[in-house]
Amino acid sequence: MKSPRVVIVGAGFGGLQAAQSLANSGADVLLIDRNNYHTFVPLLYQVATAQLEPEHIAYPIRKILRRFSWKRPNQKPKLRFLMAEVERIDFSAQVVESDNCAIAYDFLVLATGSQTQFLEVPGAATYAFPMRTLEEAVTLRNQIIACLEQAVQASDPLQRQQLLTFTIVGGGPTGVEMAGALVEMLRGKLRWDYPTLDLRQVRLILVQSGDRLLTDLPKKLGIYTHKRLRQLGVQIYLQTKVSQVTPESVHFQNNQVVPSATVIWTAGLEANSPEISEDLSSAKKGKLLVQPTLQLLEQHNVYVIGDLAYVENNGKPLNGVAPEALQQGVAVASNIKRQIRGKAPQPFNYFNKGRLAIIGCYSGVGKIGVFAFTGFLAWLMWLGVHLVYLPGWRSRLLVLLTWLYTYLLGDRAVRLILPR
Amino acid sequence: MKSPRVVIVGAGFGGLQAAQSLANSGADVLLIDRNNYHTFVPLLYQVATAQLEPEHIAYPIRKILRRFSWKRPNQKPKLRFLMAEVERIDFSAQVVESDNCAIAYDFLVLATGSQTQFLEVPGAATYAFPMRTLEEAVTLRNQIIACLEQAVQASDPLQRQQLLTFTIVGGGPTGVEMAGALVEMLRGKLRWDYPTLDLRQVRLILVQSGDRLLTDLPKKLGIYTHKRLRQLGVQIYLQTKVSQVTPESVHFQNNQVVPSATVIWTAGLEANSPEISEDLSSAKKGKLLVQPTLQLLEQHNVYVIGDLAYVENNGKPLNGVAPEALQQGVAVASNIKRQIRGKAPQPFNYFNKGRLAIIGCYSGVGKIGVFAFTGFLAWLMWLGVHLVYLPGWRSRLLVLLTWLYTYLLGDRAVRLILPR
Repeated sequence: MKSPRVVIVGAGFGGLQAAQSLANSGADVLLIDRNNYHTFVPLLYQVATAQLEPEHIAYPIRKILRRFSWKRPNQKPKLRFLMAEVERIDFSAQVVESDNCAIAYDFLVLATGSQTQFLEVPGAATYAFPMRTLEEAVTLRNQIIACLEQAVQASDPLQRQQLLTFTIVGGGPTGVEMAGALVEMLRGKLRWDYPTLDLRQVRLILVQSGDRLLTDLPKKLGIYTHKRLRQLGVQIYLQTKVSQVTPESVHFQNNQVVPSATVIWTAGLEANSPEISEDLSSAKKGKLLVQPTLQLLEQHNVYVIGDLAYVENNGKPLNGVAPEALQQGVAVASNIKRQIRGKAPQPFNYFNKGRLAIIGCYSGVGKIGVFAFTGFLAWLMWLGVHLVYLPGWRSRLLVLLTWLYTYLLGDRAVRLILPR
Repeated sequence: MKSPRVVIVGAGFGGLQAAQSLANSGADVLLIDRNNYHTFVPLLYQVATAQLEPEHIAYPIRKILRRFSWKRPNQKPKLRFLMAEVERIDFSAQVVESDNCAIAYDFLVLATGSQTQFLEVPGAATYAFPMRTLEEAVTLRNQIIACLEQAVQASDPLQRQQLLTFTIVGGGPTGVEMAGALVEMLRGKLRWDYPTLDLRQVRLILVQSGDRLLTDLPKKLGIYTHKRLRQLGVQIYLQTKVSQVTPESVHFQNNQVVPSATVIWTAGLEANSPEISEDLSSAKKGKLLVQPTLQLLEQHNVYVIGDLAYVENNGKPLNGVAPEALQQGVAVASNIKRQIRGKAPQPFNYFNKGRLAIIGCYSGVGKIGVFAFTGFLAWLMWLGVHLVYLPGWRSRLLVLLTWLYTYLLGDRAVRLILPR
């Protein structure tokens, strides 16, 4: 009997996990991604703030798949990788079309994730800095350090103030972690690098449309985070919406204009779907509707996971965090194996191990089960969890060394303006 | 008395050394570079062959200068850095013009180095890959790994062979080290990443115009290198000149055409001089003529060092290696200090500590004084010397760890196709 062909599009947390869980299933598995690496998205903000190097959090997919894909000469690998941009999917022909080939499938897993949504704010897509891909994180790092270099040369005090004003849009975990890391970077030992610059002039603004930070977490944690960030010197604008972004400034809906050379956008995501031959039922932000088994409503041999899928848990939509995608990856692998054996797929249940976020050095917030906690313990747990989930021992060692350096010395090791 | 102003253009080996040697001289020193980092050029080929990360060999200039530039609040730093592109130098006004300011000097040190010279070979400047800057090394790494990814997908065997053929032009130390590193990368454990690809198909060609490799070193070493590279599987074409480079192939003057998607150009350098207000006496390849004291023939307050200067030692021109630039940096600092004190500058003498090059894993060639030697000892000395000269303990530790990993396991840790 011919092995069934499973094609997985997207090598983020969900797609990569699905591929690994299917590796020894007897199916012929092909994983496709436009990059040759997996990006550890939760640590992108540490690349943007010159703590970690891009190589620390981007891991070659072929290296991860090595132990599954490598076989003795005359064996066929059961798990293959293809670096390609998927352009269109044809459900009736059961074919995935990439830029230079068409790939037939028996089962398809769509795990193409999400991209930044600029909420139709004028200028935001052009002038604001998103932080969702490795490329965007490196671009943002270049921008932050270039602003400091330009501020050294600025003779006009207003221009210098504008170069030293950084605005972060979005008060979710990414915005909060970015604000903490950026303020510590700019107020830390970096002043030794810029003796002619008064870094007390640095102004860091965190803009949140809601009435508190971290709305996904218990209120107590949002309030603690607010207090900590203000202690660190971050100005927090609650119930404020951005109405326009220009190269020199950010405008708010209350008509206030703040001169700010750098506007960092962490405020919205939308599903990132390839073109599909048929119209599909979708929820808000382009997410596709799925059955409880994660099968597409319209196609029983197509699964959708991660940020592309609209999935509810206890009546509330999922948050779009890595553990959700990882568990969905395991679940679709199991369901596809069941379908291959002629059994019915089972509904997906998310087991919430908890949420964590850090606010700069030595403090964080967390919620595990019914317990919400703050401070050093949450910070330490965050470091531990991220180290454990990083792919590969080499990344873990390098990130651990870098964190020891960064947090013990309060310094930043990496601060190149990388050529592009 | 007002401190004399010394401006140094270029933060390569020579310029950076001159700045550090002048830091406590009482002069007001300004170092200018277009990048905010110093590139450790001798290890660029290891970035291109996915051994080292860009951050390992590029070091922030402000970090290097920290201990000289940081002073207590009311003190003025004696050594400053400016990130700017120098566009023109006006000798009569004693001014350096950058893209957004003009800087007056009393003494000027020109250390702008060299850039790749394509010897007017048609297509070379467009399609060949030079390897002289960090940007170029990363671009070349992207190209090498992208060729492997494309070869996986190539259905036409001729196209696959072309993608797997790498041609290195130039049989000097850079070409030899690149050939050794590349052949070991492509024939090593990378095959585990590409189970569907037969990496025995990889063809690596080293093209040299002269009748042996490493013409700057004793003949014996060139012959040993030739033998070692052939054992590793490199095809060496001596007395061969490139006549054309296209996106698909390399043409030789003997009318032979080799289909090769990647042509790496290490064959020539020319001085990289900013525009200067006056005509200056120059030697071959745009190098400027200097007095034995390294002062420009025409201007006694302008010094020229490194690849930009034409300097002879024992009647032969210098080779353009890092130790020459470093020693010249020390010498100009000393001569400028003498001039400030009203004394005459002294002639520069190069002390040749020796030359080393490695040929892949565990073998190298070296010449120290009259002793020429080959093999494991030369390889080990090369590693040691490069570790010692790397700027900063952090780089040293990371490079050492990476070398242990690479050489003991025969594997490559870094192989992202970095977004650009």
